[in-house]
Amino acid sequence: MASLFGGVEGGATHSRVVLVAGDGRILAETEGPCTNHWLIGSEKCLERIEQMVSEAKSKAGADPHVPLRSLGLSLSGGDQKDAISKLTEELHQRFPHLSQSYYITTDTAGAMATATDHGGIVLISGTGSNCKLINPDGSETGCGGWGHMMGDEGSAYWIAHQAVKMVFDCMDNLEVPPHDVGYVKQAMFDYFQISDRMGLLTHLYRTFEKSKFAGFCQKLAEGAQAGDPLCCHIFNKAGEVLARHVVAVLPKIHTSLFLGELGLPIVCVGSVWNSWERMQAGFIRVLAQARGDAPGQAFSRFSLLKLKRSSALGGARLGARNIGQALPLDYADNVDVFYTHIFEP
Amino acid sequence: MASLFGGVEGGATHSRVVLVAGDGRILAETEGPCTNHWLIGSEKCLERIEQMVSEAKSKAGADPHVPLRSLGLSLSGGDQKDAISKLTEELHQRFPHLSQSYYITTDTAGAMATATDHGGIVLISGTGSNCKLINPDGSETGCGGWGHMMGDEGSAYWIAHQAVKMVFDCMDNLEVPPHDVGYVKQAMFDYFQISDRMGLLTHLYRTFEKSKFAGFCQKLAEGAQAGDPLCCHIFNKAGEVLARHVVAVLPKIHTSLFLGELGLPIVCVGSVWNSWERMQAGFIRVLAQARGDAPGQAFSRFSLLKLKRSSALGGARLGARNIGQALPLDYADNVDVFYTHIFEP
Repeated sequence: MASLFGGVEGGATHSRVVLVAGDGRILAETEGPCTNHWLIGSEKCLERIEQMVSEAKSKAGADPHVPLRSLGLSLSGGDQKDAISKLTEELHQRFPHLSQSYYITTDTAGAMATATDHGGIVLISGTGSNCKLINPDGSETGCGGWGHMMGDEGSAYWIAHQAVKMVFDCMDNLEVPPHDVGYVKQAMFDYFQISDRMGLLTHLYRTFEKSKFAGFCQKLAEGAQAGDPLCCHIFNKAGEVLARHVVAVLPKIHTSLFLGELGLPIVCVGSVWNSWERMQAGFIRVLAQARGDAPGQAFSRFSLLKLKRSSALGGARLGARNIGQALPLDYADNVDVFYTHIFEP
Repeated sequence: MASLFGGVEGGATHSRVVLVAGDGRILAETEGPCTNHWLIGSEKCLERIEQMVSEAKSKAGADPHVPLRSLGLSLSGGDQKDAISKLTEELHQRFPHLSQSYYITTDTAGAMATATDHGGIVLISGTGSNCKLINPDGSETGCGGWGHMMGDEGSAYWIAHQAVKMVFDCMDNLEVPPHDVGYVKQAMFDYFQISDRMGLLTHLYRTFEKSKFAGFCQKLAEGAQAGDPLCCHIFNKAGEVLARHVVAVLPKIHTSLFLGELGLPIVCVGSVWNSWERMQAGFIRVLAQARGDAPGQAFSRFSLLKLKRSSALGGARLGARNIGQALPLDYADNVDVFYTHIFEP
């Protein structure tokens, strides 16, 4: 069997593995649970990766004992140097049969490498959130990505947290909610299967699972879809705060990224983007205002791109590039432009 | 030896035990670490309680195998019925020699029982925060107390979190801080012994300890004391949000609580109150505004009271009362009025 190149997309809720041939053809794909080492520890993270990759090898009809040429891992939480070099070392030591070489990078880098090699912004809003500008010269500027204890603004976790917090504050008479909390309160009791607020504490502390808590966002998306004003309000706020991540990196964007036909390309990753229509007004308002605050910029339009392929593909590409191998990817096949906005002059 | 009545004050950072004779004399006191069952689990919580109480018995010269008449536990996190009845049952089963009877209540109830039996407001700002109104008829209304994932506004944890978040957001260009972050940033690097922000992640996730994180508040109090504008700003905000807890329960306060010489009595518990002077302006501003929003109320003054004795004493009293025994406490000995404010008419 010819050389195989592997890629991993490791998220806080789901993970994916893809195996690619040297000519860029995808030979196998597998899925698995969370592989964020901050959330589950490196031990579990490594085991899950091993399992998914071995499964993918079998699917591709490859011998599980023959190592891949390279495995490129695009991981949420994959940007702490010490932790990453330790993970890489352990992969080498424990799973020599899995791959000849390992390359660990961030979820944002993997997403970008899946979409384009010209650079742009990656704006993740899945279980957590993160924003990274990658300029055409490879220079990077980030905003966010610090996890639910220190940010994750605009993510599913954050949206779920905002909603629950509004119910708590309303019931405590600590804050007046912007709209009636009735729908959200009932949805919260139903989703967490609790009968009072005390019941939620175990979900927040003793048995806390970020992806379970963030999963409540789906119920809020349904509420927004059905027109519940509080749900709509929260998604609008999520749109605003996600746009503020773009505004944060705006001063660092290389002018050439504004000039293409699509304007500034923003690669949108994560399930919260399925609710784009509910976030749109807030998102655009914040960007329009930032444009107004710094007139004369080349920032006249932007486009939102969605990946049609897993970021595992970008991970595979970066892992291969790291050993000097260029995997040919057809980028047009990998992305959809789902929204373009042209600001009024 | 005569009958002994025990009390426990269980906090998120420190705990205290007191043994009292039937005539109200304190015979022994001991200290220990966190006994919040949400933070350390009920197993560890029970063990630590057993250890502290046994130590106190020895200090009092009592036989450790002779049970106390009652043990009243005033615990942060002591207000979930299911968890509490389970804890009580386990205390009975595992430590029959410790006490004949057990009574578990909240940290707020223990503090109030230490200060007065006329009712008032307990406003806790230690590692976490909580507010409880106890009316003279015994009826209660709470605000907050949901822990660091869902509130703890104005607590040491919250103050530390606000400060760290402002540094992160400033460095990310996500938010413009209200003042220079220089002092707070350096203090953060020093306190957590890290060289960059990535280093903080392990303190927030893998090795998270609420009391360790909240301990950073002490450095911010020192900064405020030295006049650092950002530290002062954050403590002022803490004063505001703590006052908003009082405003939240204001509509439920029995009029008689406003009418004493001290005005509304607010029992202030926790180390953050050591920085009262830094919080004062924000605290008074919020209360004055709430008064303005609802004119004609009897709310014309308030006093802040500090406990001179541990809430373990109130716990002991409530535990004894639960078995029909009235422990005579000299309340005047237990509290200090450290501030009285009279609103302009």
